Amino acid sequence: MTETTWKEKAAAKREALLSLIPPEWRLPTPLPPPAELPNVTGEEIRRHLSTQEILITESSAVGIVGKTSSGEWKCEDVVRAFCHRAAVAHQMINCLHEIFFDAAIKHAKILDAHFAKHGRLLGPLHGLPVSLKDTIHVAGVDTSMGIVGWLGTFEGAPLAETTSRPESTIVTHLRALGTIPYVKTSVPQGSFAGETINHIIGHTPNPANRNLVVGGSSGGEGGLLALYGSPIGLGTDIGGSIRVPASFNGCYGLKPSTGRLPFQGIASIVDGQAAIPFVVGPMGHSVGDLVFLTKALLAVEPWRSDPGVHELPWRDEVFESVRGRFRGKGERLAFGVMRSDGVVNPQPPVARALREVVQLLKSLGHTVIEWNPPPHAEALTIWRENILIDGGHAFHSALTLSGEPATPTVFGSKPSDPVDGTEVMRRTIALRDYRKAYLDYWNSTAALTGTGKPVDALIAPVHHGPPPAMGRVRYMGYTCAFNVLDYSVSVIPVTWARKDVDVYPSDYLPLNRMDSVVQNDYDAELLDGAPVGLQIVGQRLQEETVLGLSEEISRELARVQVARL
Amino acid sequence: MTETTWKEKAAAKREALLSLIPPEWRLPTPLPPPAELPNVTGEEIRRHLSTQEILITESSAVGIVGKTSSGEWKCEDVVRAFCHRAAVAHQMINCLHEIFFDAAIKHAKILDAHFAKHGRLLGPLHGLPVSLKDTIHVAGVDTSMGIVGWLGTFEGAPLAETTSRPESTIVTHLRALGTIPYVKTSVPQGSFAGETINHIIGHTPNPANRNLVVGGSSGGEGGLLALYGSPIGLGTDIGGSIRVPASFNGCYGLKPSTGRLPFQGIASIVDGQAAIPFVVGPMGHSVGDLVFLTKALLAVEPWRSDPGVHELPWRDEVFESVRGRFRGKGERLAFGVMRSDGVVNPQPPVARALREVVQLLKSLGHTVIEWNPPPHAEALTIWRENILIDGGHAFHSALTLSGEPATPTVFGSKPSDPVDGTEVMRRTIALRDYRKAYLDYWNSTAALTGTGKPVDALIAPVHHGPPPAMGRVRYMGYTCAFNVLDYSVSVIPVTWARKDVDVYPSDYLPLNRMDSVVQNDYDAELLDGAPVGLQIVGQRLQEETVLGLSEEISRELARVQVARL
Repeated sequence: MTETTWKEKAAAKREALLSLIPPEWRLPTPLPPPAELPNVTGEEIRRHLSTQEILITESSAVGIVGKTSSGEWKCEDVVRAFCHRAAVAHQMINCLHEIFFDAAIKHAKILDAHFAKHGRLLGPLHGLPVSLKDTIHVAGVDTSMGIVGWLGTFEGAPLAETTSRPESTIVTHLRALGTIPYVKTSVPQGSFAGETINHIIGHTPNPANRNLVVGGSSGGEGGLLALYGSPIGLGTDIGGSIRVPASFNGCYGLKPSTGRLPFQGIASIVDGQAAIPFVVGPMGHSVGDLVFLTKALLAVEPWRSDPGVHELPWRDEVFESVRGRFRGKGERLAFGVMRSDGVVNPQPPVARALREVVQLLKSLGHTVIEWNPPPHAEALTIWRENILIDGGHAFHSALTLSGEPATPTVFGSKPSDPVDGTEVMRRTIALRDYRKAYLDYWNSTAALTGTGKPVDALIAPVHHGPPPAMGRVRYMGYTCAFNVLDYSVSVIPVTWARKDVDVYPSDYLPLNRMDSVVQNDYDAELLDGAPVGLQIVGQRLQEETVLGLSEEISRELARVQVARL
Repeated sequence: MTETTWKEKAAAKREALLSLIPPEWRLPTPLPPPAELPNVTGEEIRRHLSTQEILITESSAVGIVGKTSSGEWKCEDVVRAFCHRAAVAHQMINCLHEIFFDAAIKHAKILDAHFAKHGRLLGPLHGLPVSLKDTIHVAGVDTSMGIVGWLGTFEGAPLAETTSRPESTIVTHLRALGTIPYVKTSVPQGSFAGETINHIIGHTPNPANRNLVVGGSSGGEGGLLALYGSPIGLGTDIGGSIRVPASFNGCYGLKPSTGRLPFQGIASIVDGQAAIPFVVGPMGHSVGDLVFLTKALLAVEPWRSDPGVHELPWRDEVFESVRGRFRGKGERLAFGVMRSDGVVNPQPPVARALREVVQLLKSLGHTVIEWNPPPHAEALTIWRENILIDGGHAFHSALTLSGEPATPTVFGSKPSDPVDGTEVMRRTIALRDYRKAYLDYWNSTAALTGTGKPVDALIAPVHHGPPPAMGRVRYMGYTCAFNVLDYSVSVIPVTWARKDVDVYPSDYLPLNRMDSVVQNDYDAELLDGAPVGLQIVGQRLQEETVLGLSEEISRELARVQVARL
């Protein structure tokens, strides 16, 4: 395929996507450039919507299901509102890869008809629209994953027109729950970068400031959520792909440990790389919504259909116990705080976010200790060494299908030789040994917490900074390390960059060359107002603990912030 | 190192081992050859022991702990009895690699002194001797794993005399429970074969018929148990290494799924091969004893010290519920029965064992359906392809340390090229797809059971035959397939080969060349009386279910067998 044809193919898809947006949902005039109109959230998007559409789309997932379940809202109205808002969002930030409004509305009508006729719900999440990252397969819908050569194929394999493309298992569960998928959201080329850019839909900028990136790889999901074009969505994460866009867009995300939620049948450009597996998890507007979807998915008993899922139902007693302790019922809690991973220091807004949360936790009587784990630099080496044992062969073969070049920000943009089996085994051992050393370190904090027990969770940066300008994500070590460890991690929004207070100290001494580059990247003026989140980190399979703590910390943060106003 | 020196080194170890047996425990005269005295179990070994020693060593693990906990038996007497019996067993069948009687007796004295002084137990399994397969590291004790070059090293790495060798995590737990390790049992060279032969201690024959093999790789463990030289032990399994020796020695074994019991720090010749992981599990004289040790190990919360263990406590309600259903309380059970894996048919005694169990289950009102899963031949290919991604490099490097040749029956006796990362990924995908297809098949049996639910468990051969003569294990497909699936499997003894009834039908048509070889291997005269076990197979992480069913089936089998007498 010549260069022209991959460009043509990409352009055709881009146009086909836009053509799926009904004329009445098109923006009347093109948006001004980002320099003139950086922020398209809030009133900027609301003015394209009716009052009722705003009311619906700014409701929580829990609230929506309450209304659809009582019959107060029709599923069709709910889905139409989200389709409309997502359509506008896409025109603002290129955040969609696939649009299937018609199927979704048809689906909603069936739910409504069933409810009207039988007075019964079709699943506990009756009528809840759910957006999906483009790595997740939906029957009858393309999965390009930002790769031109994958368009009109099944993961690059030619598609006989009669062949049905298998749906990801989690989508089957979502349907059984009564939810309504309606869009698939944009990802970087191959879904393998921290910035969402590909040759099909171009760049997905940050809706809060279109001069900044949306993050990746679940970037479209993050941007769509920031614009309230979705009540809740699913992302995937192998190095920070749920957490970075959650942080960059002021929303919440859960990266569960492997084996908690079903990854069966989700696309991956490193498919078959098993040492550091991809996981799927929810992204949304509140911890309550993440809990809502996670509990619902576990209630389906996903281990019955995905052999990779452990039989581990939602443990409400763990969730409630940690919440109770946060509020002072029972033993006080102990937290670790990671001020720096020793490779790249957090930029001032992130350092302040950490200070604010630590202050909050201490003010509530909880213990916070400094975190000095086995070097995270080692975790990053282990991550890099395990993630591309094929030297990027699968990724570059996928590009070859159309002839498109690699985008500059993609991970593994230059192919290398695959490593041999002996080396694969050595790398797996290094990973296992690091996990053991980290667990031993975690246990050793029992001597420091004053409770006689190790810390309950760790507070850590998601990224070294707020969303930067394009090409400056550079480093994802703060998230990668917890993929190496396979820990359960949630992300909560904590604050916004403030040019007045968030400045490097005048005597700041960079840790190293990379840290110096990151320091120079920091533009207080440009980043002013950009969201900053933090990671709440638990050990492996501790989703209930991190969600419980996230819920409590978020509520207290909101209380403090309101009190300040 | 020249050939002489590896032979010398092996001989020196062999002698050193024997020298650890006190003179009063030495056999007064050499044993007659196997042809004259095939069976050394029962009275043959008992006559070397006192009545009290026989009473102690033929007690269950549960019974022993009952007596040591009440103070009726001293731990020292218990340990001495097992040391004595194990010493005799070793002189009969070469079943030990390491003897640490002195340390064990010292340990027992400490427990006794503590109990005498404080009236308290040092752990819930106070004073229970536990034998360990040689792959498990014990502080201050060698781990050769049947490799000459590993003697006096830590997994082949030179050992500074001051360096402490890390103990396997499960041993730390065993000590915390109050158990007393006292021997490590023999394995094939590299612990990677179905027959227990190595250049250090030679061959471990089957104690019930020394003309037959003991199985492998936990062969010494199986043989020691058959001679009641241990109340309970730990084996490891990646292709049948717990199950085959359990079946060949008329004892019980549990191969748990990955992540249930801590494998951290156990030696493996395919260390770093993560697709089909080794697991550790108990082997013993009854299901009750397996449950006893498994529950105790889970009560230690092993996930707190091994990052590979899932937080999944013992689920007594599952264990009791399946037992109740077996006895007619609640829904009846449904079983699959695998009469053949389509590669090698079971020899007549195994076919009869299946028929007897099926008849029993049906007589109790349970449903049994024929098992037609995704081809097991495919599972075997996947097993072979994933297990040696280094082409056997680690194994052959270990042999090179001393210059010893590979033993003929070892798996991967000829090295090949390591495969590359792309191929590793392809093989991992094949494994995952097979697991999914198998799970789908399992679920599909809901249409056949008449209960509307899939089968609760599968009954399958452990091996195509009873223990054969040396060099004739040939095929371990019946066990390997369930390592590919990572299923929970227990082995129960079912019957013994009977030359009068167990004959191939005169019109028997071999499936293929291998099946024909296996048919020719079958020597009804030689194998008469040899033990035959079966696998009780559950899905992943269903240890409670398979143990519950094993307990019930074993009890009913005993009842039927007694009734027949």
